[in-house]
Amino acid sequence: MVAYDPQRVVEKDIEDVQMVRSFLGQWPVTWINVSGLGDLSVITKLGEIFNIHRLALEDVINVHQRPKVEQYKDYCYIVVRAVLEKEGYASEQVSIFLGKNFVLSFQEQARTYFDPIIVRIREGKGRTRTAGPDHLTYALIDAIIDGYFPVLERFGELVESLEDSIIAQPGAQFIEQIHDMRHGLLTLRRAAWPLREAMATLYRDPIPLIDNEERVYLRDCYDHMVQIIDLLENYRDVTSGLMEVYLSSISNRTNEIMKVLTSITVVLLPLTLIAGIYGMNFDTGASPWNMPELTWRAGYPFALGLMALVALILILYFRIKGWWGSPPKMKG
Amino acid sequence: MVAYDPQRVVEKDIEDVQMVRSFLGQWPVTWINVSGLGDLSVITKLGEIFNIHRLALEDVINVHQRPKVEQYKDYCYIVVRAVLEKEGYASEQVSIFLGKNFVLSFQEQARTYFDPIIVRIREGKGRTRTAGPDHLTYALIDAIIDGYFPVLERFGELVESLEDSIIAQPGAQFIEQIHDMRHGLLTLRRAAWPLREAMATLYRDPIPLIDNEERVYLRDCYDHMVQIIDLLENYRDVTSGLMEVYLSSISNRTNEIMKVLTSITVVLLPLTLIAGIYGMNFDTGASPWNMPELTWRAGYPFALGLMALVALILILYFRIKGWWGSPPKMKG
Amino acid sequence: MVAYDPQRVVEKDIEDVQMVRSFLGQWPVTWINVSGLGDLSVITKLGEIFNIHRLALEDVINVHQRPKVEQYKDYCYIVVRAVLEKEGYASEQVSIFLGKNFVLSFQEQARTYFDPIIVRIREGKGRTRTAGPDHLTYALIDAIIDGYFPVLERFGELVESLEDSIIAQPGAQFIEQIHDMRHGLLTLRRAAWPLREAMATLYRDPIPLIDNEERVYLRDCYDHMVQIIDLLENYRDVTSGLMEVYLSSISNRTNEIMKVLTSITVVLLPLTLIAGIYGMNFDTGASPWNMPELTWRAGYPFALGLMALVALILILYFRIKGWWGSPPKMKG
Amino acid sequence: MVAYDPQRVVEKDIEDVQMVRSFLGQWPVTWINVSGLGDLSVITKLGEIFNIHRLALEDVINVHQRPKVEQYKDYCYIVVRAVLEKEGYASEQVSIFLGKNFVLSFQEQARTYFDPIIVRIREGKGRTRTAGPDHLTYALIDAIIDGYFPVLERFGELVESLEDSIIAQPGAQFIEQIHDMRHGLLTLRRAAWPLREAMATLYRDPIPLIDNEERVYLRDCYDHMVQIIDLLENYRDVTSGLMEVYLSSISNRTNEIMKVLTSITVVLLPLTLIAGIYGMNFDTGASPWNMPELTWRAGYPFALGLMALVALILILYFRIKGWWGSPPKMKG
Amino acid sequence: MVAYDPQRVVEKDIEDVQMVRSFLGQWPVTWINVSGLGDLSVITKLGEIFNIHRLALEDVINVHQRPKVEQYKDYCYIVVRAVLEKEGYASEQVSIFLGKNFVLSFQEQARTYFDPIIVRIREGKGRTRTAGPDHLTYALIDAIIDGYFPVLERFGELVESLEDSIIAQPGAQFIEQIHDMRHGLLTLRRAAWPLREAMATLYRDPIPLIDNEERVYLRDCYDHMVQIIDLLENYRDVTSGLMEVYLSSISNRTNEIMKVLTSITVVLLPLTLIAGIYGMNFDTGASPWNMPELTWRAGYPFALGLMALVALILILYFRIKGWWGSPPKMKG
Repeated sequence: MVAYDPQRVVEKDIEDVQMVRSFLGQWPVTWINVSGLGDLSVITKLGEIFNIHRLALEDVINVHQRPKVEQYKDYCYIVVRAVLEKEGYASEQVSIFLGKNFVLSFQEQARTYFDPIIVRIREGKGRTRTAGPDHLTYALIDAIIDGYFPVLERFGELVESLEDSIIAQPGAQFIEQIHDMRHGLLTLRRAAWPLREAMATLYRDPIPLIDNEERVYLRDCYDHMVQIIDLLENYRDVTSGLMEVYLSSISNRTNEIMKVLTSITVVLLPLTLIAGIYGMNFDTGASPWNMPELTWRAGYPFALGLMALVALILILYFRIKGWWGSPPKMKG
Repeated sequence: MVAYDPQRVVEKDIEDVQMVRSFLGQWPVTWINVSGLGDLSVITKLGEIFNIHRLALEDVINVHQRPKVEQYKDYCYIVVRAVLEKEGYASEQVSIFLGKNFVLSFQEQARTYFDPIIVRIREGKGRTRTAGPDHLTYALIDAIIDGYFPVLERFGELVESLEDSIIAQPGAQFIEQIHDMRHGLLTLRRAAWPLREAMATLYRDPIPLIDNEERVYLRDCYDHMVQIIDLLENYRDVTSGLMEVYLSSISNRTNEIMKVLTSITVVLLPLTLIAGIYGMNFDTGASPWNMPELTWRAGYPFALGLMALVALILILYFRIKGWWGSPPKMKG
Repeated sequence: MVAYDPQRVVEKDIEDVQMVRSFLGQWPVTWINVSGLGDLSVITKLGEIFNIHRLALEDVINVHQRPKVEQYKDYCYIVVRAVLEKEGYASEQVSIFLGKNFVLSFQEQARTYFDPIIVRIREGKGRTRTAGPDHLTYALIDAIIDGYFPVLERFGELVESLEDSIIAQPGAQFIEQIHDMRHGLLTLRRAAWPLREAMATLYRDPIPLIDNEERVYLRDCYDHMVQIIDLLENYRDVTSGLMEVYLSSISNRTNEIMKVLTSITVVLLPLTLIAGIYGMNFDTGASPWNMPELTWRAGYPFALGLMALVALILILYFRIKGWWGSPPKMKG
Repeated sequence: MVAYDPQRVVEKDIEDVQMVRSFLGQWPVTWINVSGLGDLSVITKLGEIFNIHRLALEDVINVHQRPKVEQYKDYCYIVVRAVLEKEGYASEQVSIFLGKNFVLSFQEQARTYFDPIIVRIREGKGRTRTAGPDHLTYALIDAIIDGYFPVLERFGELVESLEDSIIAQPGAQFIEQIHDMRHGLLTLRRAAWPLREAMATLYRDPIPLIDNEERVYLRDCYDHMVQIIDLLENYRDVTSGLMEVYLSSISNRTNEIMKVLTSITVVLLPLTLIAGIYGMNFDTGASPWNMPELTWRAGYPFALGLMALVALILILYFRIKGWWGSPPKMKG
Repeated sequence: MVAYDPQRVVEKDIEDVQMVRSFLGQWPVTWINVSGLGDLSVITKLGEIFNIHRLALEDVINVHQRPKVEQYKDYCYIVVRAVLEKEGYASEQVSIFLGKNFVLSFQEQARTYFDPIIVRIREGKGRTRTAGPDHLTYALIDAIIDGYFPVLERFGELVESLEDSIIAQPGAQFIEQIHDMRHGLLTLRRAAWPLREAMATLYRDPIPLIDNEERVYLRDCYDHMVQIIDLLENYRDVTSGLMEVYLSSISNRTNEIMKVLTSITVVLLPLTLIAGIYGMNFDTGASPWNMPELTWRAGYPFALGLMALVALILILYFRIKGWWGSPPKMKG
């Protein structure tokens, strides 16, 4: 846990929650960041100190909340979801309480996306130090939203590489990959859509705790969310098109295989029949009508020639119908 | 049937409906829970006592209502649907009448989801005992909504296990399972969507019977409903994707089978033709052109060798085209 | 045609349209029901008597109107569509004019769904007799809307039976049945959706001719419409899923057939090849290398054994790959 | 070009655009109809006379506008699209300027749909002659909208005939027909949807140039548009279902063909194998084990009988599995 | 960089950003166009001179913004996206700042679409010279939007040519082409949709910097955007239909190939069986029952005749079933 104030900066790892009381009221901005929700008693005590509603505290602990903005009398409760790439498009809940002179944030686990803000406060760079708790809230949300972009970028690269592979060589493993991708997208969308709504609420609704000047910044957050959702919808369209591309490619392959099977079969079956006919055991002696070819001088070459002729005609026929290799444009 | 009041608690199994009159007005909150709609006369009498509109009473009995909130002069009529897992995603109607000093609830059958509330009232824990009938209404609705989550969780597990099985081994039985799943989802969605709307009405609209403080609690109910619907929509997307996954898997399998058929046929047909040719009965004596191979010393090994050669060439050809096992990446 | 008034009831089959004038103004409620739109002069005369706008009269005659509510100065024009099951999900237009002291209704053909209302009026049961023309209008609409439920119920049964048959045994005739079903649904939806909107207009909009007390009843009508549309949308989802189920089943069947073809072909082709080889006419005397098997003592059993062995190996191979009957779970 | 006024009627083919000025102001209603947009100078001059905005004039000439209603200070600019059946579901732009005492209409080409209006004005029938320019505008729009119905009717007939043909005998030509149909629908919808919106604007928005009494007529136009769009959406659903029906039918056919191929192959292959076996040249003299059947007295009938038996068993097997003709319900 | 003012025109390639200050305030309209975002210091300095918010400047540099309109105290920030055809349906960001007496525009790269405006200003034609900075802004936006039409036109031609090719000869290369097309459409739509919204904001919302007279012009821009989106949605429908057309064509082709395979196989297999039967080596001498045909005088012609008969019957059968060429209507 870290506590900070503008003008002077005090940073502390708080061990006793009661210490917080002494800071409250003394400093224009106090930020308490709880990383990890393991210690329930800490959360309860903080809830008492900041006079937070029981239902809001329950939402902090139950980490399956949708991003939302809830106004209470003395504070504003904001739920944001951060995306985690390394764990396969999961998302993590971050709860932020914005009060008159405090910001209280809860992370599911200790992560690093708030580190740059702490550095900025320490070094007194930018507006964060001089502005109120509303700007700090913006900075926290902005840090989380900025974490979406690299994840989406890598997702986009994955989609594109998958696309090329499917068209080049469709195989069964892509079904699972596409399906996994859709799952990932659903997870991301479930985090992003309500976050956009929450951002819209923050910058549009008249929340007394948020300064008008801050709204420009929050509008920027909202703009980022709109861009993120734009990308997500784009990926969604592409991904849903991928399954169709896959099905079409498979259909096309089956069609190609069928062509090979059919043409080979159709060319060889008549030859086999001819061979079969000349393999019949009719008694050539019984009558001159019985298989006179067998005793011809050139009977065998004649039979082979007949086969070659039939094969040639059939092959030509398939060439004209465009089933056999010749029209190269067709195979693109 | 059970009746209760705060401060003191009186619990009774009411036999004569007229007994209710004596409680009404005497206690700040009277809760009458009718489990089972078998006895029509009881419902009619209660309707008379609480002065309930004929159409509302009809809706109580006709258990196919959508969740809704209807305001009447002296009371508010709320229809909620509880999900029943054990009977295959059915849903059950619960009608709640919220009056100034009474709550009247009708269950389709005697179920246990109201039991914890009765216990809480008995033991005087939480706000339920001290707050008005609006909080009791909230508690009833909350108990019903909480019943959705375990059902959805198990549904989610089912979806996931089905997903894995389909990709591993697509079979005809999945068509029916996916179809059943969709049916289940439709049932759940038909219960959940209007319930969300009803919750929105309850917490947003100015209903005089509901205290402003209670609205925070009802907003929590609404939040839960939004989460439930989020999950349902998620499952819907996944389920509708499953059918596509199934179709693609089947197409892919057919394609694989076609490859086997085609390659075997294409390899063996020429060999059969060669065998057929050497089985022709041309008179080798009639002319030296007639099948001289038959009298060659190594004619037979030559023929077998020819076959082996043709087979080898064709197998190599298929290997290169990637139809036959060799390129292992392709089969994932 | 029938005319009625509360307190006293007068029922007449009107022959001369001018008779209507004598009733108008004398009685608090006069209801004229025209069954069948054959006689255009009657409609024109009624239009004159009740001072109805030319465009509204045109709509009465042109029976392809969507359900709607149109307010004119002295009356309100309501178009409702009744579903007709026996003629294959057609719908029939019923036009109702609600005036200060009259209700004028036009049916496409003489049907019986208004009969219970006439009986109720005759016997003076319920509110209909004592309430104004707005309640009569409600009663008429309610009677029509109630006619949707049995139709939908039977539709639902049809869908379910079709579902079971398709999964059990997919065949070409289902394509047509599903397509017909969709047609039916489209017809029903085209009647139901605007009817819901019309009901919403009736109960929400401030129409001076409708009493506030009646609004509760009209809200009930609206509720019924919402339920009907809920059911229709449900059927739509199921029906559109059916085509997919059908396609999947067919794909699956083709796949099964392919398996049979492929496995039989692949097992028998090598055997045929072996038979073909031993049918070659190489001169066994020319060289000891030429088909020595033919002169072996056990050559024939050896050949048969070889065939059996090859067949066995291939069958085993297919069993392991799961194409041939053995893994019973796979066929569900 | 034609000019008309009520009370008296003056009809002229205007050669000099300046003549228009003399009519303006003199007559309560002046209607100038320009058929064909070939002569740009005429349009520019009319634009000057009636003081029309440059952008509106550009829209008149650029005939790819969507139907819309634009209000300017002194006039109202309405774009309507008429459907043209004979040229394959194209649509034509008609621009109407409604001023205080004039109506100015531009047709892409000289067509006949305004002729009945001219006749009505000449003969003084109906309201058109006595009402203001707003009623004339309504009459023009109504004439154009009425032109949609016969086109849609014939479209509906086409859809239905196509439907029957596809189910009876699916063939490649239907793909193109369905695709053309969709194109046609897209064209019609692109004309109809914004026209509906334009109609809604005309009858709902407070446009000072339109009398309240006229709104009833415009609402009728709007109603017609709603009906047209209803029909179009209906056709769209049916048409998009058609492609699915087509695909299902083709799948089904392929399945049927596969059944024939598979059953014939599976029945004949074993027979061919048996024939092949008895065609092997084993030396029956070398050992009694070598093909003793060949020297049996009834060897040949035995072989034929064996074949017949095998064929019979297989045919029976397929009959039981329902692949071969017998269960007639299956083929519908 | 170019600077201009009405009445007199001054055009300069600015080297020192500070020069801008001297123009500001002196001239009613100053337009600075920055082509290329390479030089960050210039942008920062311009930002200082015109007092532009840090976040807006960041959006200028980060060229993945969606089109939008943002109002600040002294200026209005408009982001527009221009489409670039030659680089495969990419889009380029153009940022426009509209102030009281200045217009500041940033292009990603130096392009020519603003050239006609500069010419118009130079020559003093049209309204641009005399009107304020709002008209210049309109002119810039209009120039960008007009750039969409030729791109869309060529896209439409591509779609149509693709359509014809697919129906004529479906091949694997189309899958990629259709997929590329969809990508292009997605890119275009992502640029066009928010641009439409931005245009709606510009012409509808009360922005003090925009004159009421200019709104007519901006409405025209909005109209163009609506038309563009109409076209895009149209192409989207057609493109998504194309994949279905492709799949249907492939299915149809597979079906046709299956017919050829099946009919050839089914015709030739029985003949091969007959040939095989007469190739059996039964000892004709052992019994008169053993293959008496072999010793018949006309045994061979009989066998050939039998084959011809069987083939004929089967061919006739397929003709009747419509699989073989004869019913020409079927192949369209």
